[in-house]
Amino acid sequence: MDFITNINWALLLTNAGLIILKLIGITIAFFIVRSIGNRVVKKLFQRFQERNNISAGRSLTLQSLSLNVLSYVLIFMFIVMVFQVFDYDATALLAGAGVVGLAIGFGAQGLVSDVVTGFFLLLEKQIDVEDYVTIADFEGIVEQVGLRTTQVRGFDGTLHFIPNREIKKVSNHSRGNMRALVDISIPHDKDLDRAIAVLQDACDKYRNEDTSIVEGPNVIGVQALGSSDVVIRVIAKTENMQQWAVERNLRKLLKNTLDENEL
Amino acid sequence: MDFITNINWALLLTNAGLIILKLIGITIAFFIVRSIGNRVVKKLFQRFQERNNISAGRSLTLQSLSLNVLSYVLIFMFIVMVFQVFDYDATALLAGAGVVGLAIGFGAQGLVSDVVTGFFLLLEKQIDVEDYVTIADFEGIVEQVGLRTTQVRGFDGTLHFIPNREIKKVSNHSRGNMRALVDISIPHDKDLDRAIAVLQDACDKYRNEDTSIVEGPNVIGVQALGSSDVVIRVIAKTENMQQWAVERNLRKLLKNTLDENEL
Amino acid sequence: MDFITNINWALLLTNAGLIILKLIGITIAFFIVRSIGNRVVKKLFQRFQERNNISAGRSLTLQSLSLNVLSYVLIFMFIVMVFQVFDYDATALLAGAGVVGLAIGFGAQGLVSDVVTGFFLLLEKQIDVEDYVTIADFEGIVEQVGLRTTQVRGFDGTLHFIPNREIKKVSNHSRGNMRALVDISIPHDKDLDRAIAVLQDACDKYRNEDTSIVEGPNVIGVQALGSSDVVIRVIAKTENMQQWAVERNLRKLLKNTLDENEL
Amino acid sequence: MDFITNINWALLLTNAGLIILKLIGITIAFFIVRSIGNRVVKKLFQRFQERNNISAGRSLTLQSLSLNVLSYVLIFMFIVMVFQVFDYDATALLAGAGVVGLAIGFGAQGLVSDVVTGFFLLLEKQIDVEDYVTIADFEGIVEQVGLRTTQVRGFDGTLHFIPNREIKKVSNHSRGNMRALVDISIPHDKDLDRAIAVLQDACDKYRNEDTSIVEGPNVIGVQALGSSDVVIRVIAKTENMQQWAVERNLRKLLKNTLDENEL
Amino acid sequence: MDFITNINWALLLTNAGLIILKLIGITIAFFIVRSIGNRVVKKLFQRFQERNNISAGRSLTLQSLSLNVLSYVLIFMFIVMVFQVFDYDATALLAGAGVVGLAIGFGAQGLVSDVVTGFFLLLEKQIDVEDYVTIADFEGIVEQVGLRTTQVRGFDGTLHFIPNREIKKVSNHSRGNMRALVDISIPHDKDLDRAIAVLQDACDKYRNEDTSIVEGPNVIGVQALGSSDVVIRVIAKTENMQQWAVERNLRKLLKNTLDENEL
Amino acid sequence: MDFITNINWALLLTNAGLIILKLIGITIAFFIVRSIGNRVVKKLFQRFQERNNISAGRSLTLQSLSLNVLSYVLIFMFIVMVFQVFDYDATALLAGAGVVGLAIGFGAQGLVSDVVTGFFLLLEKQIDVEDYVTIADFEGIVEQVGLRTTQVRGFDGTLHFIPNREIKKVSNHSRGNMRALVDISIPHDKDLDRAIAVLQDACDKYRNEDTSIVEGPNVIGVQALGSSDVVIRVIAKTENMQQWAVERNLRKLLKNTLDENEL
Amino acid sequence: MDFITNINWALLLTNAGLIILKLIGITIAFFIVRSIGNRVVKKLFQRFQERNNISAGRSLTLQSLSLNVLSYVLIFMFIVMVFQVFDYDATALLAGAGVVGLAIGFGAQGLVSDVVTGFFLLLEKQIDVEDYVTIADFEGIVEQVGLRTTQVRGFDGTLHFIPNREIKKVSNHSRGNMRALVDISIPHDKDLDRAIAVLQDACDKYRNEDTSIVEGPNVIGVQALGSSDVVIRVIAKTENMQQWAVERNLRKLLKNTLDENEL
Repeated sequence: MDFITNINWALLLTNAGLIILKLIGITIAFFIVRSIGNRVVKKLFQRFQERNNISAGRSLTLQSLSLNVLSYVLIFMFIVMVFQVFDYDATALLAGAGVVGLAIGFGAQGLVSDVVTGFFLLLEKQIDVEDYVTIADFEGIVEQVGLRTTQVRGFDGTLHFIPNREIKKVSNHSRGNMRALVDISIPHDKDLDRAIAVLQDACDKYRNEDTSIVEGPNVIGVQALGSSDVVIRVIAKTENMQQWAVERNLRKLLKNTLDENEL
Repeated sequence: MDFITNINWALLLTNAGLIILKLIGITIAFFIVRSIGNRVVKKLFQRFQERNNISAGRSLTLQSLSLNVLSYVLIFMFIVMVFQVFDYDATALLAGAGVVGLAIGFGAQGLVSDVVTGFFLLLEKQIDVEDYVTIADFEGIVEQVGLRTTQVRGFDGTLHFIPNREIKKVSNHSRGNMRALVDISIPHDKDLDRAIAVLQDACDKYRNEDTSIVEGPNVIGVQALGSSDVVIRVIAKTENMQQWAVERNLRKLLKNTLDENEL
Repeated sequence: MDFITNINWALLLTNAGLIILKLIGITIAFFIVRSIGNRVVKKLFQRFQERNNISAGRSLTLQSLSLNVLSYVLIFMFIVMVFQVFDYDATALLAGAGVVGLAIGFGAQGLVSDVVTGFFLLLEKQIDVEDYVTIADFEGIVEQVGLRTTQVRGFDGTLHFIPNREIKKVSNHSRGNMRALVDISIPHDKDLDRAIAVLQDACDKYRNEDTSIVEGPNVIGVQALGSSDVVIRVIAKTENMQQWAVERNLRKLLKNTLDENEL
Repeated sequence: MDFITNINWALLLTNAGLIILKLIGITIAFFIVRSIGNRVVKKLFQRFQERNNISAGRSLTLQSLSLNVLSYVLIFMFIVMVFQVFDYDATALLAGAGVVGLAIGFGAQGLVSDVVTGFFLLLEKQIDVEDYVTIADFEGIVEQVGLRTTQVRGFDGTLHFIPNREIKKVSNHSRGNMRALVDISIPHDKDLDRAIAVLQDACDKYRNEDTSIVEGPNVIGVQALGSSDVVIRVIAKTENMQQWAVERNLRKLLKNTLDENEL
Repeated sequence: MDFITNINWALLLTNAGLIILKLIGITIAFFIVRSIGNRVVKKLFQRFQERNNISAGRSLTLQSLSLNVLSYVLIFMFIVMVFQVFDYDATALLAGAGVVGLAIGFGAQGLVSDVVTGFFLLLEKQIDVEDYVTIADFEGIVEQVGLRTTQVRGFDGTLHFIPNREIKKVSNHSRGNMRALVDISIPHDKDLDRAIAVLQDACDKYRNEDTSIVEGPNVIGVQALGSSDVVIRVIAKTENMQQWAVERNLRKLLKNTLDENEL
Repeated sequence: MDFITNINWALLLTNAGLIILKLIGITIAFFIVRSIGNRVVKKLFQRFQERNNISAGRSLTLQSLSLNVLSYVLIFMFIVMVFQVFDYDATALLAGAGVVGLAIGFGAQGLVSDVVTGFFLLLEKQIDVEDYVTIADFEGIVEQVGLRTTQVRGFDGTLHFIPNREIKKVSNHSRGNMRALVDISIPHDKDLDRAIAVLQDACDKYRNEDTSIVEGPNVIGVQALGSSDVVIRVIAKTENMQQWAVERNLRKLLKNTLDENEL
Repeated sequence: MDFITNINWALLLTNAGLIILKLIGITIAFFIVRSIGNRVVKKLFQRFQERNNISAGRSLTLQSLSLNVLSYVLIFMFIVMVFQVFDYDATALLAGAGVVGLAIGFGAQGLVSDVVTGFFLLLEKQIDVEDYVTIADFEGIVEQVGLRTTQVRGFDGTLHFIPNREIKKVSNHSRGNMRALVDISIPHDKDLDRAIAVLQDACDKYRNEDTSIVEGPNVIGVQALGSSDVVIRVIAKTENMQQWAVERNLRKLLKNTLDENEL
């Protein structure tokens, strides 16, 4: 048993001590970083909620997503560091995982992109459930805003599922008063000034009858000169979602007005 | 045989011992991680199934895919770690495999993308077999939803095979009541108010005759002012898939109504 | 010759022994992995063939491609490992090869993509020779489905060569009965109900004369209200590839029917 | 306790000394670089503000973003260097983080792109709140310019949220006088020269009546020869946002002028 | 000169010996691999030529390209390995070359893509000189098929240079008989059945007069119901490139036939 | 204090000496390379300016950009090398910076692309301030050419900000004489030869009256045969920016000429 | 001064010797490779010039570009190798340069792409100055072909600057005779055969009058059957750039011919 005594016990023990010290260091660092991270995230969302008067539910969803991501990243780092302490060459392992990961990554890239976009959709309150929006070429009422998918109910009853990454630009039609716009044409040989005056009269009367009117309706003038007729434009500002009703009413009103005045 | 005695048997044995210890450690870690992983996956899908009342078959498909992916990743990692213990430099091997893998990866990227999208299509129940949908510019009835390909039967009898990655946005027309919409025009010189009243009367009668009507039909007003006619819009809400029949019936009804009243 | 005796023969021999041992290990591992891999592939295709009743020829094509790919990957790995045993740093070599490979890879990427798509086209039986399909904006009869290119003969006689990667979505018109659809318009002032009755009568008679009819033809109602005419739609279900003949016959029949009844 | 005395205390101590020295060096370098960096950034923005007379608020937003980015990069570097001093192989750690990071990176890429574009939008004053602009196919009044999103209120009342990365080109309609352009056509058989003279007369009178006119309106000549009429173009330069009112006024004026002169 | 004797001559010589042995090994391996590779390539093309009866010239072009690529790759590998033997760290060198190479690579990527596509264009005989093809939106007669560029002479005399990478799909109009298709319309009030009979008669006569007719021409029926006329379709199969002449002849013939019969 | 004497002072000192030598070497190399680089850049721009007679201001802008880039690259390299001398492993640091850098890089990529394109726009004098150009689908007068953004004033008064990277192709309408082109149609039943003669006469007279005419105007012949008229084309070459005025004058002139001659 | 004598002078000297030997080796290798490379490039271009009878100027431009690129790559490699000999770890340096380089590379990628495309444009003589071409959607006369930009003068006088990378496909209209094509329509009720005979007569006479005619003009037959007229097509082959003049002459001639014959 000669060689056993030759084993460099001193080196072995020193190494073992070093490993234990490193492990302790890593573990302590891990817990410190995590608790600091968690506090920072929570503080951030608390302040954010106070300033932007966001519903507590929406704020909690965002906060829990943030804490989850932080957790997974830190645990991943912790594992890699433990590996290294025991001299399993984590680089190679990771490289290997990388080949698999890259392949999956390309596929899952869309998933991450969905979640990031969804995160900001919620954070910036660009769309709310019940809003009338146009996103990704679909128009309709928002039924659900998720981290991965947004659901929009089209006016024909279709339910559209839109991965958040497809939502490049958001047009929200439920954020303020809307415009009602009616173009009406009169023949070329009619008296233009009288027509405008008559139409403005009708508009003024209509204003008092419809409570959804915010501003106008006003005859703003000649919008186009056609080959055989002149197009006159009327504009009003209405309460949200009342624009179509007002437009339809105005169309009937103005048409009848012209007929009555033989214009 | 002088040099044999010079061989550092102590070092050799220590190394051998270390290798065996490492192998045991890796193997134990492998089995622990795998059994934990499996349990976690199964638990997740059990809970998921309970909450979203998904069919057991669909849930099992998703669970088995998840377990397979987990298995392959863990086995791959296990092999790499065994390689390293025996000092075959797996990095280089992987780098080599990487060159081949990258080339294949670019090609197979679409495949992974298909499966990821298919996974979420199944998970989020965006489409079911027999649904009437519009996906990837194709319209029709879903015949099959697979992990790689979705099959849609067009109304002209064509069978469309759509790789899941091509399914960016899903429009599902089988999730609720649908709208029937008919635009009918009357000449410019007819009495607009009477026409609307007469049409609304016809609509009210029709409502009682057709059981697939959910709401309406209502004459909502003047939709457009044409050069020689006025377009009136009628809207109804019908049971799913009855919208076309209702629209065709309404078209005939309204046309006959106008004829009868000489409008 | 003093220094020769100083050469550490023990180390040299130990190294030589280690190299030989490693080589033997690699070779054995190579053959084991290959034979296991081959068996797995063959079993998979045997089962696949039994379940999906695919022609033996098609199955063999796919199996031989799979075996080839497996072979090349394993041989590549084997060579790299032998290199490493002899301390030729294969990493560098591969890195070098990588620069060339990357350049070629970008170019050959399309090739791999072709083969992967072709593999699934064959595996999933999306298209068969003699099928009438629409792929990559070309419409016609499939003449050949290869691993790299698919050939489609257009109806005007042109032969289209389509790299498989360009085949994003497949519309197969040879998988079931097809729809025949005819729109016919009658003037605004004719009796709509009588016209529909007369057309349906003609359709009922035609059904008995044409054996390629599967369902219908039926007058489904008023499809559109034009400015001076009313469009009536007739639909039938026919045997595959008979849809055009039926449509042409119906067009002549319905036109003559309307003429005879002065509608 | 033989092996303890064998421990190479000298080496240990030397190493400990080296580590401490390195740590001190790194910390000093960190603070020096940071303070220099901060000063440089502040100086740059001070000078920038003075030269381009930018509002202090806008300048502070940009400066604070710059300081934040600098801070994060330096802290990140500091941590990595401390890791290295303690021989935790940060490379591997980073490689691991890289795999996660890459996946997130692809998703967050858009976010960074938003901020970079937003930074330059603010820096170069391309758009201001209240400007009338056309960006990313949306036309309207800018309501808010943020680092991530720009909000534009369309003229129909819709609020458009546009991620800054979607803003490729900016068309700002609020940076100077605008052109009013009216095309009016006269029948082929009228006297062209007289028509032009009459119209120019009307324009000259109008110029004195409307204070929002900057230049013109002038009849610039025959713009097109139609099949039955000749198109004459009139152009004016107006104060910003007055172009539509002027155009509408001109249309009415010119139409009436032609009527009065029987042209 | 004490230290000279201290130089470890044994080590130096052993190293020198090792280097020489390695060099010899590399050189032998190089020549073996090259000669095997060359033979394999030649055999492959010999077999390929026999099976697909390709012209010897085309086969030689492809073979020489393959041999060149093989040569360059092997020489490149040989140089890298020699570098390594002399301990010039080729990795770094390659990394450096990589930075330059990457920049050039992005630019030259198109070049490689051209050659790969050109290789398959030649190999699969998709186009031949003198063929009438539609590629990359250009229609015309192929003048030259090169490894980098294909030249097509448009029918208006223009010479189109098309980099092979732009050739995504090939439509070859010179691979079989072509279809001649003529649509002719008759007024709504004419006798449809008589018209079809009369046209078919004319077609039958024409068939015997024109030797370039392969099948038909046949009146296949009513293709469309216009608002005031009925469209009748006539189809024939002709020898390649005769389709236009036949179509023009048929148009004149059918028009005259209808005139003669007052239809 | 036994172990202190055991410290390998010789090694330490040698290392210290080596470090100092390396630092000196690096510093000298840095200054030599920088001064050479600066001189080369300055010489290049001096020669460039002389040959292409470019304004001194434009040349200085380009030169200062080049010197800045050179400076930053060299300083960066210098820092990395100093790091290495002190055995701080810069690779890892850079890898870390790389993760951050990559994320930012993707975002800033557009910025670099802007500057590179801007550099060549200035260098090649493709556009000058006051030029009338069409770039990135915008048409107008160039107001400013910067390294990042180009400003174009549209003819309607809008100011377009175009990031240079969006400027793919430049169409400069201010580099030479322009063409004036007028198409005028005469009825089918008029004498074509007389019409052409009369129009050419009018053109010949007009040439002498307008000093902005460089060549023509000439009646070049029958451009198209319409269903009821014949289109005759007239072409002239005019001084830059006079093309529209000439076209408008020609339209009036030719119209009046035809009227006078009753054509 | 005990430790000085302890310095391993032998090792130092051996290293110094090794470094010098390596430097010499590198330098020799550098000059050999460069001179061989230069000769190869020159030979290649000499042969190329002889075979393709290219102008000496164009050949020299291409050769000097090739020599420059070769030079820069070799010098870059030489520097890296010298660095390595002195143990400055060039890898790290390069990695650092890589981060900067990557950022610039993305931006400069277009530049390299321009030069590569320009190289082949010159090499393959696809376009020459004075050619009439259609490239990148611009039509006009080539004014200059550079390594980075091609300048095309549009027919309206505009000068188009096109970065070479935008030149995907080249349509050269100056490489051979061009086709003149005229479609002329006659009313439905005229004698078709007589019309064709009369037109062919006119064509035959015209052929003798116009020396720019190469082939034809021939009446090739009925091109289309319109609702009220029949379209007859006439085709001729003309000398390059004479096609428009011939077409205009033919249009006038054929129109007059039909008028004279009352067709």
